[in-house]
Amino acid sequence: MENLFLNSNDIEKMEKRFRTNFFNSVWGFKAANLVGTINKHNQSNLATISSAFHLGANPALVGIVIRPDSVDRHTFENILETNQFTLNNILKSFYKNAHQTSARYPREVSEFNATRLTQEFTTTIVAPYVKQSSIKIGLSLQEVLPVKSNGCTILVGKVEEVVVVKNAILNDGFVDLEKAGSITISGLDSYHETTKIARLSYAKPDKPVEEIGYGK
Amino acid sequence: MENLFLNSNDIEKMEKRFRTNFFNSVWGFKAANLVGTINKHNQSNLATISSAFHLGANPALVGIVIRPDSVDRHTFENILETNQFTLNNILKSFYKNAHQTSARYPREVSEFNATRLTQEFTTTIVAPYVKQSSIKIGLSLQEVLPVKSNGCTILVGKVEEVVVVKNAILNDGFVDLEKAGSITISGLDSYHETTKIARLSYAKPDKPVEEIGYGK
Repeated sequence: MENLFLNSNDIEKMEKRFRTNFFNSVWGFKAANLVGTINKHNQSNLATISSAFHLGANPALVGIVIRPDSVDRHTFENILETNQFTLNNILKSFYKNAHQTSARYPREVSEFNATRLTQEFTTTIVAPYVKQSSIKIGLSLQEVLPVKSNGCTILVGKVEEVVVVKNAILNDGFVDLEKAGSITISGLDSYHETTKIARLSYAKPDKPVEEIGYGK
Repeated sequence: MENLFLNSNDIEKMEKRFRTNFFNSVWGFKAANLVGTINKHNQSNLATISSAFHLGANPALVGIVIRPDSVDRHTFENILETNQFTLNNILKSFYKNAHQTSARYPREVSEFNATRLTQEFTTTIVAPYVKQSSIKIGLSLQEVLPVKSNGCTILVGKVEEVVVVKNAILNDGFVDLEKAGSITISGLDSYHETTKIARLSYAKPDKPVEEIGYGK
């Protein structure tokens, strides 16, 4: 198969839109979530986010990336106001509604209403959950990391609450995302379903890894 | 479908291994890459990494998470020594070899030899690429972000070089990861193939999103 080689000069000369598509997709598949927030005036906001990444299990932490100039700005402002946000997985049954949240709605319009997703609240978290999701996680803001290289901000959230469809949680704690109905995103706008290849055993230097199955 | 509700107290009481599996998988699917590094003594290192996340297209930046106490330590030390690393996508044809890199080999053992993956070099980047990968990206270390909440470190890399199989790059810059043969990881050890659902049009407040197809 023929390869394309790009040096830093070629990359600088890329057309803007081409470069955006290229680098949003080139690292691989991404987690498909909706981030739910609310401000002091009880105006809720919902936005697709594909940057959530695992930071640690104890304490349970996640990172999300906030871009300097984007529709994320309401999300960011709301999180700073309330110190809370939710992450909710995107299912195939509503991925078009989820994608629609990235339109630039004015602040007074809740993306929940605009996209016909349903907000849901608990007593622990002020930010709204997405009723239609099967994995819902309530978080408190733990740390704000400014990225000097490009003005992005990484927010670190600590898990305060989890609501997950029971049959997706296997005996060893592994969450079977396919049972939960989760899909995955590549680039800015491409949605994919998944099929299991295998789970592999814990790797040791002296023996080859084995398929361990998914169990219950 | 029945839900499991967990509050912060339930989460604290989770058995250690259960919690690790749970929080490594709950956020969604992850990019499956190998990070290639080398030290001053020309000892190369290769490690599976599922934390690579897009940080920006101009300049082209990626973030990776380094855990405080893990097999990542050789990777981290090498990056600090040479200021460079590579990211290489994991294909179905060698995902077991890739997983094997997470075994705790002594420093003098190169995971390339131990796992029968082939290293490959360019004149721009001192760190090794994985010959078998179809997406190979050479990076320079741009920024080091300590995460105070748990002692992790986020490394920001700037793209210096890209080698991608040509037919995976569509006209608008989107990298078709399925054409490239990329797979995705969930949790610590589960590998998945993907199937396209659709690409969706840029969302606007006044009209519903549409499927735009993948083009060429």
